[in-house]
Amino acid sequence: MKIDDRFYMQLALGEAWRYQGLTYPNPAVGCCVVKEGRILAVEAHHKAGESHAELWAMLAAYEALEGREAAVDSADADAVYDFLQTVPEELFRGVSLYVTLEPCAHHGRTPSCAWALSRFPLHRVVVATADPIPGHGGGLEILADHGIEVATGVCEEEARELLEPFLIWQERAFVLFKLAQTTNGRIGGGYLSSPESLEHVHRLRAVVDELLIGGSTVRTDRPTLDCRFVDQKRAPNVCIYSRQNEFDRSIPLFGVSDRQVRITDDIEPLLDRPSFLLVEGGEGMLKALQDRIDWLLLYQTPKLSAHPLSYNVDQKLKYLHHASIGVDLILWSRFE
Amino acid sequence: MKIDDRFYMQLALGEAWRYQGLTYPNPAVGCCVVKEGRILAVEAHHKAGESHAELWAMLAAYEALEGREAAVDSADADAVYDFLQTVPEELFRGVSLYVTLEPCAHHGRTPSCAWALSRFPLHRVVVATADPIPGHGGGLEILADHGIEVATGVCEEEARELLEPFLIWQERAFVLFKLAQTTNGRIGGGYLSSPESLEHVHRLRAVVDELLIGGSTVRTDRPTLDCRFVDQKRAPNVCIYSRQNEFDRSIPLFGVSDRQVRITDDIEPLLDRPSFLLVEGGEGMLKALQDRIDWLLLYQTPKLSAHPLSYNVDQKLKYLHHASIGVDLILWSRFE
Repeated sequence: MKIDDRFYMQLALGEAWRYQGLTYPNPAVGCCVVKEGRILAVEAHHKAGESHAELWAMLAAYEALEGREAAVDSADADAVYDFLQTVPEELFRGVSLYVTLEPCAHHGRTPSCAWALSRFPLHRVVVATADPIPGHGGGLEILADHGIEVATGVCEEEARELLEPFLIWQERAFVLFKLAQTTNGRIGGGYLSSPESLEHVHRLRAVVDELLIGGSTVRTDRPTLDCRFVDQKRAPNVCIYSRQNEFDRSIPLFGVSDRQVRITDDIEPLLDRPSFLLVEGGEGMLKALQDRIDWLLLYQTPKLSAHPLSYNVDQKLKYLHHASIGVDLILWSRFE
Repeated sequence: MKIDDRFYMQLALGEAWRYQGLTYPNPAVGCCVVKEGRILAVEAHHKAGESHAELWAMLAAYEALEGREAAVDSADADAVYDFLQTVPEELFRGVSLYVTLEPCAHHGRTPSCAWALSRFPLHRVVVATADPIPGHGGGLEILADHGIEVATGVCEEEARELLEPFLIWQERAFVLFKLAQTTNGRIGGGYLSSPESLEHVHRLRAVVDELLIGGSTVRTDRPTLDCRFVDQKRAPNVCIYSRQNEFDRSIPLFGVSDRQVRITDDIEPLLDRPSFLLVEGGEGMLKALQDRIDWLLLYQTPKLSAHPLSYNVDQKLKYLHHASIGVDLILWSRFE
């Protein structure tokens, strides 16, 4: 195995993927901090409004170098920014950062990462890809103006895949189709997933703009479609895709408070709107939306099953990322 | 992410898994070399008769520290051992090794790793698990006797999973059932796998004692079952599991030179013999052997398919390891 720039960037990418989708409307970003080959920190952006990856990672690097915890909430961007202002510059001399995306240049909901970094005598800041949003960017320039060596393009393809949802949901709906299956592709037979997978779905539900589900799944499964596993009060609005308007209103999803439910057979307007759309359903929904699905999110559980329910569709994929989640496998793919 | 002993051991484990099975009859072993937090090398044992993981890794660490390649073949255990004897001891002062298995203590086909390491003023040797073979072991004692700090039990459960085939094939046949499938569990429709997956299968075929295949698969697929993708002359002996002795002898597998083919409906003797048995087949073979399969090796390809051929069986698994292999996913599971 080669221990090079790509190795450190892969660590940053892997950490970022843990929060893919969950950072909506922000992009998923990861950061690895290295000093003379020693990995000090690998962190990621968790959630919009909270610290960016660079702030998380610089705080963790501070703690690694000092051997003690800082009395500051890592998620609180303003607090971390202010804390980093008080750190002696020399502590980070010779430190390199590997960031999956160019550090932000302007103070938005959170302070500018490029400015936060620029006061330190860093060795290098390596980014996988420049900020793709026109008018943003400039972070590398700020760093270079402060005499920090910058480099770009390390693992650029992987970083662009990581960013893809972010780029799509600026323009139109990013359509993420979620499925839970056995290792041999069966989707029936009750709850299939580990508690960690179920929790992950609920975290996604808590951030998406709308949850799209097929009418037949609603009738068969009688789901609740809330976020109860993550203690999140806000349940997503639900759009039921159905030609038929009649539903048994005792199906739990209709009883969730603070939620809108609508039933429609025309989802085109939904797909055109810049947003994050999570789709839950089976074969019918997969086929109905096949040309409009961006990514498939698969929770694959460690069993083989003789249950007859599967899904029949021809579709080329590209695997983007896989990881363990509890005893399951989480697999992100692009519809090609 | 925590950068601790487990982090370095996970790197060693991940590298070792790349050679799972291929090291037969040796165990798969990985090694990560670290100096003051800087990762110098992550290497693994590739093949029986070649350098152990520690020798590969120490040579790579030498190259990382010296910034140049050593004029020695990394795979040649004797050559690496001799080369390491010439390295100034001080070069490795403060270096720590993370090894998934206790370094070997006695000179067998290859020189003893514990002796090779013991002449250096190492900081620590951390092993995931002690040598499980009675009468082996003693490697940690040699290192401790030379004043090197030793520790054991880091990622022990993961290391024992990695070692499981090795422990089984000492006692009886280790039965590895191989399947190639689409993401939704379809096993029909021609070659499903990436070139890298096919090559991996052929590498496995080149080391196993025997390849077990169902009679119906032989009749339907008319396979060759050789190792042509890895330029390996030795094709594995084949055992066809069938009640019926009649086969069309123009099926390519019968025409491979230097191979024995036998046809039997009694595989019990095969399963009792200490050996490494690779099973290729479909649903029929999976059901016939269900109680005797140790592990499932799945090559999962990035597409969904409407092809009707799948496999129906109820079986609990434990996912042991997953990795990318070309565009595919390789997934190792235990039958529970």
